[in-house]
Amino acid sequence: MNRVLNFSAGPSAIPLSVLERAKAEFTSYKGMGFSIMEISHRGKVFDALHNAAIEKIRKFYNVSDDYAVLFLQGGATLQFAQVPMNLYNGGVAQYVNTGVWTTKAIKEAKIQSINYEVVASSEETKFDRIPENIKFSDDADYAYICSNNTIYGTQYAKLPDTKCPLVVDSSSDLLSRELDFNTKNIGMFYGGAQKNAGPAGITLVIIRKDLAARVKDNVPTPLRYTTQIEANSLANTPPTFGIYMFDLVLDWINEQGGLKAIHELNKQKAKYLYDFIDNSSFYQAHAKVGSRSLMNVSYTTPNADLDALFVKEAEANNMIGLKGHRILGGLRASIYNAVTLDNVKTLVEFMKEFERKNG
Amino acid sequence: MNRVLNFSAGPSAIPLSVLERAKAEFTSYKGMGFSIMEISHRGKVFDALHNAAIEKIRKFYNVSDDYAVLFLQGGATLQFAQVPMNLYNGGVAQYVNTGVWTTKAIKEAKIQSINYEVVASSEETKFDRIPENIKFSDDADYAYICSNNTIYGTQYAKLPDTKCPLVVDSSSDLLSRELDFNTKNIGMFYGGAQKNAGPAGITLVIIRKDLAARVKDNVPTPLRYTTQIEANSLANTPPTFGIYMFDLVLDWINEQGGLKAIHELNKQKAKYLYDFIDNSSFYQAHAKVGSRSLMNVSYTTPNADLDALFVKEAEANNMIGLKGHRILGGLRASIYNAVTLDNVKTLVEFMKEFERKNG
Repeated sequence: MNRVLNFSAGPSAIPLSVLERAKAEFTSYKGMGFSIMEISHRGKVFDALHNAAIEKIRKFYNVSDDYAVLFLQGGATLQFAQVPMNLYNGGVAQYVNTGVWTTKAIKEAKIQSINYEVVASSEETKFDRIPENIKFSDDADYAYICSNNTIYGTQYAKLPDTKCPLVVDSSSDLLSRELDFNTKNIGMFYGGAQKNAGPAGITLVIIRKDLAARVKDNVPTPLRYTTQIEANSLANTPPTFGIYMFDLVLDWINEQGGLKAIHELNKQKAKYLYDFIDNSSFYQAHAKVGSRSLMNVSYTTPNADLDALFVKEAEANNMIGLKGHRILGGLRASIYNAVTLDNVKTLVEFMKEFERKNG
Repeated sequence: MNRVLNFSAGPSAIPLSVLERAKAEFTSYKGMGFSIMEISHRGKVFDALHNAAIEKIRKFYNVSDDYAVLFLQGGATLQFAQVPMNLYNGGVAQYVNTGVWTTKAIKEAKIQSINYEVVASSEETKFDRIPENIKFSDDADYAYICSNNTIYGTQYAKLPDTKCPLVVDSSSDLLSRELDFNTKNIGMFYGGAQKNAGPAGITLVIIRKDLAARVKDNVPTPLRYTTQIEANSLANTPPTFGIYMFDLVLDWINEQGGLKAIHELNKQKAKYLYDFIDNSSFYQAHAKVGSRSLMNVSYTTPNADLDALFVKEAEANNMIGLKGHRILGGLRASIYNAVTLDNVKTLVEFMKEFERKNG
């Protein structure tokens, strides 16, 4: 079968073996005579799948029972509002601004009229890096970061150490590298599924239960984390098919050797592509060394016309999703978990040939 | 292939031909080499599908350009909060209480501290009917109803005529009968997809644009209808696969002859089942004549033990989803669009046999 090489930023490539498994049982889940999307979220069949997925996530990230693992709706975007609505506690919330997504999160903190501060920003350098020497107050209600910035291709090499609870938007590097919850003071860790964990429409939220309990009575019931913690994400109908796909991706990660192996492979893929770009005078990477994302590589050719030609010729060569985000322009290769090292090598070969013809 | 007869209340049966079409192109949408869930929501391929789905909905319900047709997340449950947050205009909002879902909607109006009234309720008779002689104020900010009550098996035979804008939660009778937007003063019409329109995780919202403009600055950006109206539901990543499935269901409805034909068939199915129940002294329907749902038939055998035995034996006979909601107990057959008249006849045959053995 003809399958394209998919460098889309999100929704993105899903491992073919995951798609094929879902396809095989699409009209009869495990031979039971119904699609997984046709049954109650409260029945035994879905319940088993749902709880198994939660346990796999707990194991990957070493998440204790102090935390709830939730599957919510509304994307990271709804979390931008839910975080201040639920976690602000009358003190101060501190944000690091590393691009469009944190800018939106900060805007929602403002709309909620909470006391917030932007303690560091890389806006002046067009978000080409993660700010250095970020300092959060020990007693802040929470510290907020976006661990990977899809548009600019930047990523925290490590999550910051904080005394206050750390809130991490990990939408675009979810399940892409190792993380032990016991080594950081994580208050909440969340991300949309549509980069590394299946179809759009689910947000994984891992939240410390005692912080969720801060919520005030004037917060709408469906927007309280406590509502979904008490109901194990079943306060209302969750996106059951998405949770099923998420679970299949978790199995696939295990088959690859778990997060450690996935992380190693992601480092190899990114290094291969950045090394080529850095050794070329034709291509230019946006993100600075030390802040570079293993997930999204944003770069340019010498001019916008060539960028457009690049996208067009790449598509003719079976490679899609390489156009940069409209805000930054240029080009972007998203090399999430499901993109293989071979896919990256094929892209680099194409880039070489494109440079040869147009350089 | 062995497929069960699926009477689940939601998520529910999906037409087999829809599932088979999605399955056939699951790893390569229209032979393009990617799954529909693997590509950008902003690209040409998804955009065409998305806008085509909107046009089909506009045609079914005769929806003018005064309205926006949105695909949102969070289920009807999130709408319970979004409606008062967005549509309250400093006057009064009037609700009819016909069961659990309107009770929840009213609770969110209270949390929003708006001025609201419950103008009619059937709570005293265990929500076994739609209240008669409902009177809304001509100048209310909006009048709010739930057109079909999944748990109790009641449904408005017709939507009320109002001078003020009518807000309709149509989650469990969406796309199940004819409706001409020009014949009612509809302010907003919405519903979760998981009964009649595909997998859980999408909410169809059809809203009058001038009412959406009432929203105040303190409403979180992702919860403002105006945010999604301006972005054609793409302010953030929508559940693309769900929209794709929704669109396939719209095509299927057209293949059945459109909403008029679907409505006729739904009337036949419900009549067949209610006639049998009414002529039996063993089974008892919950909903009163005149308020009966074409979608959900809630009923009981003479006692709870027999109800439990009924569910068990039905499953042994390849019929699932017949257990009543935990709040009402008893039994419930949900006979949404994808359930055929033959399926209903098979159920009735089983009910006859069960009565013969246990009556």
